[in-house]
Amino acid sequence: MERTSTVSLFDTIVTLMENKRYATLRDILTTMNPVDIAAVFEDIANEKCALLFRLLPKELAADTFVEMDEETQEMLIHGFSDTELKEIVDEIYVDDAVDIIEEMPANVVKRILRQADPEMRKEINEILKYPEDSAGSIMTTEFVILRPKMTVEEAIKRIRRTGIDKETIYTCYVSDSHSTLIGIITIKTLLLSEEDELIEDLMETNVISVNTLDDQEEVAQIFNKYNFLALPVVDREQRLVGIVTVDDAIDVMEEEATEDIQKMAAITPTTDKPYDRIGVFETYLSRIPWLLILMVSATFTGMIITSFEDALAASVVLSAFIPMLMDTGGNSGSQASVTVIRALSLGEIEFKDILMVIFKESRVSLLCGATLAAANFLKMMLFDRMLMGNESVTVMVAAVVCLTMIVTIFFAKIVGCTLPMIAKRLGFDPAVMASPFITTIVDAISLFVYFEIATALLHIG
Amino acid sequence: MERTSTVSLFDTIVTLMENKRYATLRDILTTMNPVDIAAVFEDIANEKCALLFRLLPKELAADTFVEMDEETQEMLIHGFSDTELKEIVDEIYVDDAVDIIEEMPANVVKRILRQADPEMRKEINEILKYPEDSAGSIMTTEFVILRPKMTVEEAIKRIRRTGIDKETIYTCYVSDSHSTLIGIITIKTLLLSEEDELIEDLMETNVISVNTLDDQEEVAQIFNKYNFLALPVVDREQRLVGIVTVDDAIDVMEEEATEDIQKMAAITPTTDKPYDRIGVFETYLSRIPWLLILMVSATFTGMIITSFEDALAASVVLSAFIPMLMDTGGNSGSQASVTVIRALSLGEIEFKDILMVIFKESRVSLLCGATLAAANFLKMMLFDRMLMGNESVTVMVAAVVCLTMIVTIFFAKIVGCTLPMIAKRLGFDPAVMASPFITTIVDAISLFVYFEIATALLHIG
Repeated sequence: MERTSTVSLFDTIVTLMENKRYATLRDILTTMNPVDIAAVFEDIANEKCALLFRLLPKELAADTFVEMDEETQEMLIHGFSDTELKEIVDEIYVDDAVDIIEEMPANVVKRILRQADPEMRKEINEILKYPEDSAGSIMTTEFVILRPKMTVEEAIKRIRRTGIDKETIYTCYVSDSHSTLIGIITIKTLLLSEEDELIEDLMETNVISVNTLDDQEEVAQIFNKYNFLALPVVDREQRLVGIVTVDDAIDVMEEEATEDIQKMAAITPTTDKPYDRIGVFETYLSRIPWLLILMVSATFTGMIITSFEDALAASVVLSAFIPMLMDTGGNSGSQASVTVIRALSLGEIEFKDILMVIFKESRVSLLCGATLAAANFLKMMLFDRMLMGNESVTVMVAAVVCLTMIVTIFFAKIVGCTLPMIAKRLGFDPAVMASPFITTIVDAISLFVYFEIATALLHIG
Repeated sequence: MERTSTVSLFDTIVTLMENKRYATLRDILTTMNPVDIAAVFEDIANEKCALLFRLLPKELAADTFVEMDEETQEMLIHGFSDTELKEIVDEIYVDDAVDIIEEMPANVVKRILRQADPEMRKEINEILKYPEDSAGSIMTTEFVILRPKMTVEEAIKRIRRTGIDKETIYTCYVSDSHSTLIGIITIKTLLLSEEDELIEDLMETNVISVNTLDDQEEVAQIFNKYNFLALPVVDREQRLVGIVTVDDAIDVMEEEATEDIQKMAAITPTTDKPYDRIGVFETYLSRIPWLLILMVSATFTGMIITSFEDALAASVVLSAFIPMLMDTGGNSGSQASVTVIRALSLGEIEFKDILMVIFKESRVSLLCGATLAAANFLKMMLFDRMLMGNESVTVMVAAVVCLTMIVTIFFAKIVGCTLPMIAKRLGFDPAVMASPFITTIVDAISLFVYFEIATALLHIG
């Protein structure tokens, strides 16, 4: 499996550099995938990067450059002459150039834009205008445009002539004289058709497209649903302004899944850098806000305990079951909230399904509650009372705990499934309504229910 | 935005069916994407499906059929004549046929295999032999093979002749006479090269491939890393046996992300059906095992409280801070575990990085612990003592709580980051080591630390 080659090759590359065996190095590098070469650059000493980079043939150098992390890119750019920078900029696609520019300081951006030819500079500036996370911000403006009256032969000629600079030639776009998108045709259809057939007779006219301002998450969902390789992006007048390719859609999917997972674990997503490249302080900043908020909101739970202090003092055995009730409630609530959040982000359910969701979760909660209560009753009687000889675990105490459990799980599931849907409805990210947030609410509910039931059944307090 | 058309169109389609306007219906359906037509079938009454299906042109019918859920597919197959079934089977790709067969009861599988032509039947049976979730099980055997000595012109002719039955023609595979994969070439390269150039001079020879038995998650990671449209699958002798296309890799990515998220929330992943199609009992079964396990393991936490019953009775105020300490510990632990699990599943870190991870998490935990302890000290003094007038919240009690918090967060982060890495190392799924599991362990640790510190500082128990 050659993809693991960077691991074993890395030492060889370092040794060859030290021994100044540049011809051999070049031979090795040209057999490698740009992604793997970029990984080598991120691991070798900074002062060796420029030398190694100059060993790469022009096209491979550009392909490798776009795969590097921003620190390495910035460092290399500082070492480039204007001519070297221009060679890179000329080779890369507009959307990759935009990705790089977005991460660079202003003076580097200026240098890059100065080296880009006027057409490319215009396109970069167009894309930079779109809001972050919009379809416009992740699209590329390099695609093949065909006309409806062209023959297959003319179309293929055009692709051969202009295709070298296009990010994808596999889906071609047909527009009329007003630049309105009227159809798409794949290169497969072109190759499998007769040379004199007309594009307008072959093209697919029912085109699914997105608007420049649509959210990138929506774009990713469409790729996931329809198995496209590219998706056209149109402006408000239905004019074709760009395309999103499947590789960028995959990046969005991974990024959005990571963000959802982070939010579910009470982490503020701050960066899409890999774990080993994020600093300690940055990690701290992404984690501390929710810890603080959740700590303060646990005050209410504390207040509930304080207000039932007398009941607790009268029957200290009750406090032994607080962690179990809180954890079970929290876990039940997380299960519901996480399931609903994922279904919302995959577009499986919407706000209008809220009654169906509540009905379903309430039935699931009763099944779970009954099972856990029964298991817990047995455990309290057989283990706590008989085996451990804890006389204060009476049948009534067990009844209080089990009843609390059923009620708590019911509320936990209902709160867990409704809060994310309401958040979505109000325009917030449902993922924030996941486990930790639900846990805090469910803790308060479960303790309140516990003490109320205990006071009623055990005649204490 | 035409992709929302199914929603508004659905009523029209039902009305047209009731009024027997079949020609109009057919016209509407042929402008729709197969994915959207399949959604219509899933929503209309069963007895109308067969009629509607017969309105579809043959190719569109097959494309729509593969997008339906298994219930609708099975119902339609039962209504098909053998000729109708054969028409569908002939049109669909091998990997889609395998996906359908895997979900069908044995008698339906037999009928499908009987209608497949011998070549296809053999290929289906080949793929069915690979273990679930392996690269072999998600690959297709329909791809374009070229020979190294072919010219570009010959290659394009071959693609034109055989391409219609191939799932992708955009990447072509070059093999020698022993079927060993020796290179790949994209149709872009073919189209942009001269007609008399040789494939062996143009092809990319540094091919990244996977083995038939590699895990599908690994396959998805490679797509994510290298931006491929297709990935070749080879057997142990490096013979090319199939390819995985990017659309299948995207399905795997979404499926694996959902599974990770479910496991993190203590749900046993059972099905890849959308939320609204999973029954109540099935949902119950996927949730109850972990709830039971976690409930029983909370027994230990209860036992710790019981063994410090005297301390608690002597200083009841201590119990008011139990929920806050447990929640804060649990949240801190989840943050670390979820971050590490995600980094593991994206391939950002490996087991060998464990010391780096522990060092980083311990520094983050000290920063978080110090901040939270300071905030909590202020809150206990200003809010609980001064504002609420709770005289039993003394400086010493606040010190006990804050000290416990720092120690708990430290342990929580360390446990949170190491358990998933150890799980991965031992061959278990790290995602199971997420929030709920960590919470249970951290609960026990935090209570133990709390009571030990309280006993020492407050001279009780």
